[in-house]
Amino acid sequence: MLKLIPGVNQLISLAIAEDLYQGDITTASLPQLRRDCLAKIILEEEGIIAGLELVEIVFRQLNVEVRLQFNTRDGCYENPGKDLLEIVGPAFAVLAAERIILNFIGRMSGIATASARLVSRLEGTKCRLLDTRKTTPGWRYLDKYSTHLGGVVNHRFGLDDGVLIKDNHLLLSSGIGEVIRLVRKHTGPLTKIAIEVENESQVKEALRNNADHLLLDNMTADQIRTMVAIVDGKAQTEASGGITPENLKEYASTGVDYLSLGLLTTEVRFLKMKMEIQV
Amino acid sequence: MLKLIPGVNQLISLAIAEDLYQGDITTASLPQLRRDCLAKIILEEEGIIAGLELVEIVFRQLNVEVRLQFNTRDGCYENPGKDLLEIVGPAFAVLAAERIILNFIGRMSGIATASARLVSRLEGTKCRLLDTRKTTPGWRYLDKYSTHLGGVVNHRFGLDDGVLIKDNHLLLSSGIGEVIRLVRKHTGPLTKIAIEVENESQVKEALRNNADHLLLDNMTADQIRTMVAIVDGKAQTEASGGITPENLKEYASTGVDYLSLGLLTTEVRFLKMKMEIQV
Amino acid sequence: MLKLIPGVNQLISLAIAEDLYQGDITTASLPQLRRDCLAKIILEEEGIIAGLELVEIVFRQLNVEVRLQFNTRDGCYENPGKDLLEIVGPAFAVLAAERIILNFIGRMSGIATASARLVSRLEGTKCRLLDTRKTTPGWRYLDKYSTHLGGVVNHRFGLDDGVLIKDNHLLLSSGIGEVIRLVRKHTGPLTKIAIEVENESQVKEALRNNADHLLLDNMTADQIRTMVAIVDGKAQTEASGGITPENLKEYASTGVDYLSLGLLTTEVRFLKMKMEIQV
Amino acid sequence: MLKLIPGVNQLISLAIAEDLYQGDITTASLPQLRRDCLAKIILEEEGIIAGLELVEIVFRQLNVEVRLQFNTRDGCYENPGKDLLEIVGPAFAVLAAERIILNFIGRMSGIATASARLVSRLEGTKCRLLDTRKTTPGWRYLDKYSTHLGGVVNHRFGLDDGVLIKDNHLLLSSGIGEVIRLVRKHTGPLTKIAIEVENESQVKEALRNNADHLLLDNMTADQIRTMVAIVDGKAQTEASGGITPENLKEYASTGVDYLSLGLLTTEVRFLKMKMEIQV
Amino acid sequence: MLKLIPGVNQLISLAIAEDLYQGDITTASLPQLRRDCLAKIILEEEGIIAGLELVEIVFRQLNVEVRLQFNTRDGCYENPGKDLLEIVGPAFAVLAAERIILNFIGRMSGIATASARLVSRLEGTKCRLLDTRKTTPGWRYLDKYSTHLGGVVNHRFGLDDGVLIKDNHLLLSSGIGEVIRLVRKHTGPLTKIAIEVENESQVKEALRNNADHLLLDNMTADQIRTMVAIVDGKAQTEASGGITPENLKEYASTGVDYLSLGLLTTEVRFLKMKMEIQV
Amino acid sequence: MLKLIPGVNQLISLAIAEDLYQGDITTASLPQLRRDCLAKIILEEEGIIAGLELVEIVFRQLNVEVRLQFNTRDGCYENPGKDLLEIVGPAFAVLAAERIILNFIGRMSGIATASARLVSRLEGTKCRLLDTRKTTPGWRYLDKYSTHLGGVVNHRFGLDDGVLIKDNHLLLSSGIGEVIRLVRKHTGPLTKIAIEVENESQVKEALRNNADHLLLDNMTADQIRTMVAIVDGKAQTEASGGITPENLKEYASTGVDYLSLGLLTTEVRFLKMKMEIQV
Repeated sequence: MLKLIPGVNQLISLAIAEDLYQGDITTASLPQLRRDCLAKIILEEEGIIAGLELVEIVFRQLNVEVRLQFNTRDGCYENPGKDLLEIVGPAFAVLAAERIILNFIGRMSGIATASARLVSRLEGTKCRLLDTRKTTPGWRYLDKYSTHLGGVVNHRFGLDDGVLIKDNHLLLSSGIGEVIRLVRKHTGPLTKIAIEVENESQVKEALRNNADHLLLDNMTADQIRTMVAIVDGKAQTEASGGITPENLKEYASTGVDYLSLGLLTTEVRFLKMKMEIQV
Repeated sequence: MLKLIPGVNQLISLAIAEDLYQGDITTASLPQLRRDCLAKIILEEEGIIAGLELVEIVFRQLNVEVRLQFNTRDGCYENPGKDLLEIVGPAFAVLAAERIILNFIGRMSGIATASARLVSRLEGTKCRLLDTRKTTPGWRYLDKYSTHLGGVVNHRFGLDDGVLIKDNHLLLSSGIGEVIRLVRKHTGPLTKIAIEVENESQVKEALRNNADHLLLDNMTADQIRTMVAIVDGKAQTEASGGITPENLKEYASTGVDYLSLGLLTTEVRFLKMKMEIQV
Repeated sequence: MLKLIPGVNQLISLAIAEDLYQGDITTASLPQLRRDCLAKIILEEEGIIAGLELVEIVFRQLNVEVRLQFNTRDGCYENPGKDLLEIVGPAFAVLAAERIILNFIGRMSGIATASARLVSRLEGTKCRLLDTRKTTPGWRYLDKYSTHLGGVVNHRFGLDDGVLIKDNHLLLSSGIGEVIRLVRKHTGPLTKIAIEVENESQVKEALRNNADHLLLDNMTADQIRTMVAIVDGKAQTEASGGITPENLKEYASTGVDYLSLGLLTTEVRFLKMKMEIQV
Repeated sequence: MLKLIPGVNQLISLAIAEDLYQGDITTASLPQLRRDCLAKIILEEEGIIAGLELVEIVFRQLNVEVRLQFNTRDGCYENPGKDLLEIVGPAFAVLAAERIILNFIGRMSGIATASARLVSRLEGTKCRLLDTRKTTPGWRYLDKYSTHLGGVVNHRFGLDDGVLIKDNHLLLSSGIGEVIRLVRKHTGPLTKIAIEVENESQVKEALRNNADHLLLDNMTADQIRTMVAIVDGKAQTEASGGITPENLKEYASTGVDYLSLGLLTTEVRFLKMKMEIQV
Repeated sequence: MLKLIPGVNQLISLAIAEDLYQGDITTASLPQLRRDCLAKIILEEEGIIAGLELVEIVFRQLNVEVRLQFNTRDGCYENPGKDLLEIVGPAFAVLAAERIILNFIGRMSGIATASARLVSRLEGTKCRLLDTRKTTPGWRYLDKYSTHLGGVVNHRFGLDDGVLIKDNHLLLSSGIGEVIRLVRKHTGPLTKIAIEVENESQVKEALRNNADHLLLDNMTADQIRTMVAIVDGKAQTEASGGITPENLKEYASTGVDYLSLGLLTTEVRFLKMKMEIQV
Repeated sequence: MLKLIPGVNQLISLAIAEDLYQGDITTASLPQLRRDCLAKIILEEEGIIAGLELVEIVFRQLNVEVRLQFNTRDGCYENPGKDLLEIVGPAFAVLAAERIILNFIGRMSGIATASARLVSRLEGTKCRLLDTRKTTPGWRYLDKYSTHLGGVVNHRFGLDDGVLIKDNHLLLSSGIGEVIRLVRKHTGPLTKIAIEVENESQVKEALRNNADHLLLDNMTADQIRTMVAIVDGKAQTEASGGITPENLKEYASTGVDYLSLGLLTTEVRFLKMKMEIQV
């Protein structure tokens, strides 16, 4: 349902503008390219596919009609050589769109694939992986859509759809109790209150004030274990900071409900794929 | 001069919308945050800084006046702990902008830093590193601005500012000579003609037709060396495909003029930095 | 903090375009209007003021510099004759902006004032008033900002910042339990699950599946009282449908946590105010 | 012909963004909603229908294909229970668009219906009802389109399509004669000159200067009658200010050509309607 | 007051994008250009100046602060060598804006100057010159602003601010009388009705139906004279079609009120000017 | 391939807004115009046609479906009376689009036709005609597209797709050699370096620094001949400044490679055409 999202449509419009603001001077020179061609998007390494739906919007924004045949769906795991998608349309438009399409699907599939690898390390635990707001500007929705396809649980999408009281909020205000009270008064019935806590005394004060979700920040796995015991189910718990692919399993074993991991979206590698043209 | 670039202004506008389309519900609850605060952007690992100029535009788009003091400039190498930038302004706006700013500067600095590491491997050779159009959609200018700060030479920015005749163009047309002739006729006096060639016969045909720039695609270092000898200075040469950080030096030693490397922008890691607030 | 909100800036841009797409042909004829004037916004009936912050953005979008002096703040109750705001700037721009400003502040203040009157009827009860998504298209944020100033609690702003499972979702799916399970799996840790229920059996099934918030739809006050007893604090409760200014108090006495009222934003009357110019 | 209007398309785009900037998290969780459904818009109270044409644009902007069957047309009077419109399309898109569509058609139909009620009070007189520029910002075209469907005559749409010299223009200039002369010189052959006048001497001066249209502001019905006699057909006459649904008929009986009434667009109540889904 | 006009701001934004979508690669290479410079816009041939106000908006959209000193005003006649405007600001921004500014002012001044030359031919007659809607797309407001500075009277700006019934409307409808009646019923009190007429019988029918303005299309001067006599002041008259700079005076002598002339905006020559930089 | 170009789509959107921001009040009054009609675009004077492809985009942006039949193609030379294009669609939409379409195609065809006339004067020489950046703001792409259809070679489209070192760059920097060195270092492998030179010493210095393209500015034909001899094929040569339709041939005979001519786009006359409706 990517096509419903206003920001995604705008990002595609930026992607088109940056690549062909004054057109494609190579293909514009070649009259043969007005004919139709058949293009295939071929996967070059294994992974989870993400972003196929965007292809339709790219061509719609280019004002060009093409026929698309999808041979897989977002979220599916595919092997190298897989022909993900076939496009039949005017060659000049297909070539103009080639890099835009590959950059979208390649990047999104790369995020989904890497996310899935990390999620698989938590198998057998009840702990779930969360993403963060450390995303590439303009890409918040697509980054989180991709981690979600990899099995990650999406944390809040923006500052407008979830409350998280952080150290800086506390620093500028007057104590955990007062801040929670103000936020609760200001926000609606569907809003949970999450708060970043750094030590036992903050955990206890947050619980006293009925925080819904505790973000246990920058603690060792042992510290997390202790805090989880203190919380004792009275709030959801999330560990963040200092968590790596290597110690993920250890943190997950502490009984904490969620681990949040910035690198899901701050360390990105495109999945390799290419476009092949057939005459 | 990032602020002149229309697409950059639009990307910032997307970045603001995705994070606070309906505002920041946490800070909106806290009346104390209407006061001014002092915020510092602190570097957490060494690297080359990129994107500082965007901070001013973010606040301008938020319709908020702040005072900015920059303690470094784009392109400078800084150490962990460095206070890159100080912001004095209303706390609610500084906190609303925090993640947007960090995501821009963090990502751009990450690209610049990684680029510089790869460029340094070519020291002592005459070969220069090129980026590609394999960039994150919406980020073409910023991605290339960042690799440039790392010492990379920017290849064409879009399909509209350079001609590159690729295999798909040839496949759909009628031979190297004819394609070069058509493109030269269609394009202006400042346009060089680059062509992707895959073997000796294509190299020779391209030279016969006075191509300006040969992209030697998917060849071993040895093959590159042979082709460079054939070209013998009659055109610029670029190797692409199969080049990795590990074999970079080897390819550079072939005498080829340029190496182009997709991973400069397809494998990205944000440089770590944070915002600290002082009351 | 209205000025941070992207949609508000865009709505102002629409408001300017619709009133002076080809300029103001009356003032453009009168060279005397290039001089500065002093304009005052005078309240003509008592009420709660909302939207003052937008004045600055209107003039910024008109590319005109004015000096503004505010004599009250959003959320304050003012009497007829109150001089809310003084503007000093070029007369042609002040006159061009007059109706835009009055329409914004007048409409928003009208909503805030009517909301406050309804909220005051619940004084002495623990029940709180909620708004809905039945807002004027393009005005969601401003409508809800205005009801909030009147003391109303904002329900979710859009389909993207809260889950509400309605009869149509259930109709198209396979039972309350399954739907809640799917939604919980798909959404993040800060998302509460609200569900519209129409009878006792649905209430019980929703509770069994740990719904966070029950929307008791189209029930009499007596039915609400019964359901609230069944819920017994295990979820938040909200009554909606059939609630009017007249029976508000009666519904509030049922022990339900929230009443939601579409008419807060579907029955709107501008608060009267005018602009006076002084030479 | 609403679909031709640029501002209407932009307002719909705002309406979509404010409701689903990050998507519809409820329906996104439910895979069954990818199927098609049949939805009907059912009227819940009698009134004049307005805005049906917008439904097509909403779905177009959502990039979704639906089949629409209209069972009535804009401007028709319909009874409760009437099935105005049937939509067949993917359930996730229909549910995402539901509130947007209802808010547009409900609000517009409410304005048209109330306008028609007021217009009917003037039956048997030659006096006609005018709307004003006191509209909801962003909604100028739609507000006036709706009053027009109710039988109201549209006054100027903006400051750019009609001249109205008001008290503030006079205050800042040098007399009625001079202002009319300047405006006539500056504007084109198709522009009528309307002027707000407050007393007999202004009426006479306006007539001496061949004003086309006199806006008799804030006068009693008796005063209006006197002025109309003075004007004696040498200009069009309009009464405004202090006119209410109650005294409308009395004002109309004065012989004045037009009554303008702000409340047509400043006191708005949505017409009730709902969407019903069928599997 | 150009800066108030939304479309003008958008056109400037297009002008910036088309010239420096990916920046100015020449100046970006030259670090010395970060310094301030003084630039002067020097007129190279005599004429009427138009568009100076746009300079401020260009730099505002480039996010750059400059100091501007204007040595003339829009509408003034200046001689070659005149220093119209001085700009002090960062050299990279001044050079980036140079061509944009010259193209705007040069084109607008060219139109104003040519318009003034044609207007001067009507001196001594009561006939006035009108422009048309035959303008360069995107430039309607600026084209008409420029002709106005040259002394031309602006005809309607768009299809939305004036009624003109043309042959095609009549062809598709049922007679002059019926069309005028329908239009009068549909439009407001400030709308005059203009109608294109081609012969005496149409003139008479239009007068019978109280048309306000007759567009006498494609007639010889003699025919116009006859028609003007028939009209005898009962409507405004305008001659259009076949009018050239050469026969302008002759047509003006017929007693017709207005001549409309497409070539005011369909035959355009930029006024020559240049930018000089001083270190 | 005009429809791919983002700026062209935006310009069309401006063109629609400026003509019918609040609709077409004439056709909106006439219910008969909801029927389909057949419209033909008829050429009224001979010339080269340009811009036909835009018709489709205009109607798409108006959200209206029409059937188009093209009887010629862009770049073809046609005679008066030629029926270029037939449109079948709802009359209200065809009439609303009439002037927009004629203004686009008329202006573009005018540029193409005039360009072709000038190009034909160079027949038999090897010299080619170049356009400049002296285009109508917002029209860069369309202006250059049109000159290209007339046989002109397009010079760079913007400051971002070609380097041209001009006198102002030199003035603010430190000598030709240094500037060329800096630019070469900063730009990529596909960028040629053009430099404006005014005398023999500059020509020689530019050659010493391997400039690719010399713009010989404001020289007589004799001076050009001398410089061309000095350059002797070591760089491309372009003459600019002082070239007129009259002396074009003389300049061409100097052996210079290119002549650039601002008047291709600064002196524009629309080609005459009209729309005829058939019932």
